[in-house]
Amino acid sequence: MAEALPGDRLRPHVKAHKCTELARLQHRLGHRNFTCATIREMEGMAAAGLGDDLLLANEVLDTRRLGRLVRRGARVTVAVDSPATIEAAAAGGVREVLIDVNIGLRRCGCDPDQAGALADAAKAAGLEVRGVMGYEGHVVGFESRVERTRKMETCMTLLASAHEAVGGPVRSGGGTGTYDLNTGATEIQAGSYALMDTAYGRLGLPFEPALSILATVISVRPGRWAVADCGLKALGMDHGLPSLADGGTVHRCSDEHVVFSPPDGGHQPAVGDRVRVLPAHVDPTVAYHDAFHLVEGDEVVDRWPIDLRGW
Amino acid sequence: MAEALPGDRLRPHVKAHKCTELARLQHRLGHRNFTCATIREMEGMAAAGLGDDLLLANEVLDTRRLGRLVRRGARVTVAVDSPATIEAAAAGGVREVLIDVNIGLRRCGCDPDQAGALADAAKAAGLEVRGVMGYEGHVVGFESRVERTRKMETCMTLLASAHEAVGGPVRSGGGTGTYDLNTGATEIQAGSYALMDTAYGRLGLPFEPALSILATVISVRPGRWAVADCGLKALGMDHGLPSLADGGTVHRCSDEHVVFSPPDGGHQPAVGDRVRVLPAHVDPTVAYHDAFHLVEGDEVVDRWPIDLRGW
Repeated sequence: MAEALPGDRLRPHVKAHKCTELARLQHRLGHRNFTCATIREMEGMAAAGLGDDLLLANEVLDTRRLGRLVRRGARVTVAVDSPATIEAAAAGGVREVLIDVNIGLRRCGCDPDQAGALADAAKAAGLEVRGVMGYEGHVVGFESRVERTRKMETCMTLLASAHEAVGGPVRSGGGTGTYDLNTGATEIQAGSYALMDTAYGRLGLPFEPALSILATVISVRPGRWAVADCGLKALGMDHGLPSLADGGTVHRCSDEHVVFSPPDGGHQPAVGDRVRVLPAHVDPTVAYHDAFHLVEGDEVVDRWPIDLRGW
Repeated sequence: MAEALPGDRLRPHVKAHKCTELARLQHRLGHRNFTCATIREMEGMAAAGLGDDLLLANEVLDTRRLGRLVRRGARVTVAVDSPATIEAAAAGGVREVLIDVNIGLRRCGCDPDQAGALADAAKAAGLEVRGVMGYEGHVVGFESRVERTRKMETCMTLLASAHEAVGGPVRSGGGTGTYDLNTGATEIQAGSYALMDTAYGRLGLPFEPALSILATVISVRPGRWAVADCGLKALGMDHGLPSLADGGTVHRCSDEHVVFSPPDGGHQPAVGDRVRVLPAHVDPTVAYHDAFHLVEGDEVVDRWPIDLRGW
């Protein structure tokens, strides 16, 4: 990613990995600006010395904690999409904002034709408006690159029209699924690329899956199914069932179990075997865990705390 | 629940609430024996002085941590369903087991006709066999009470046949959905009843929902949709989308957002409003959070750490 989008062309989103050690690695690769989804992520990044230029790409009302970061020297920019969030930013001591524009996701963000008026309101409240952001979250997951590209164009047109009314140097957007298609953004907020998951894995992107959960087989019904000790409390399930790195079929999960069958003709699992479980969605999976264990083959070479969890 | 299943007729499952303070309340209501799903839950319960009679209703191989609890005075019983798990229990210093029987769930548990041989193997390994357990997890969720009852009967027949071959005083099973239907078990392992969720809420059980997530509305598109700040990292999603306590329609969730519409003719949400979000599945929801905030109306009267998380 650092080759495709060097330096400030990428503003890595930390919400997928929630780990300041991993952010430090991204920083060493040239990315000094980061994207966050929560106030806690902003605080943790600033405390880790990674507060050169932090964007909270989300609307918040309780901005006092952000104002504290500003007073301590972090550069803090927050997304606003309404008079109420502009007022909160100014009242909390935030100095810089982006106007968040809805470019089709139907989540946060103002209508593109309201962006200029909101920018004027923000300036009137004493805030510096750095530009606009818009996230094409409804586009990043389409498996067809052609379809992603076509839908991306509509999004970029909307964001460009808003940007024209707002001004400022920043047009922020994009994700792992559109990192090289979103040519309209000045910076890309991709995060999942660093760890990947099976949903993004279907898109044919040049990023390898790095994250798996090592589970132990605890029960076997020979020729029928096996059970490993990794379940709903270890896996984000909104994108569906996990997969197994060595193939086979996952039938279902319960709180502490994944029930699976090995691939046809594959190794028949035995109690005590280890299996690598690949999550369908990396972000809510990571949020269940205390730490990443870095491995080379079967050897654990480091442990990185997942220290940006919570709110 | 304590009225329907007093004292040792209920062995509350702590996996749903993961909170020793809530377990202490169950203890004060007369339940001295508890069910756990993880070694961490066993350790936390023992450390909280709630180790009178702890059942790990799950298969484990790394039993050394359980043996340590035994040596420190906790009563520890573990489920076994294979020669490997029996061997692990004996080697780790566990003294008491239940033979885990598959009564139709297709997860862990031996075939009912293997239970007697496994009990003999456990006794030969020096373990005391307290009886059997079997969990009808494939039955507890059926909305029709008639259907739950009918399917329950098959499960009880299977568990009884296994129990006859195994012996011992304990026949453990059941859950919140079958707490009064499973008359074949000597003790019921229900846990969800204490907090409830919308999935169990559809069953017409006499338990009220106690758990909600208080979220703040951060973005509104008047007449179209609103967004509150509670998403995939605050909600177990395997049972589907959450609901709103005040009604309306939840359209979707993303990492930190729930997108919803108010009920027809209901209060139009404004930025800053609070909404109570009800999870579809309580167990993986609780596992994302640090603490319960106990409220009377809008006043927070206590904070109970969710101290049994992790593994």
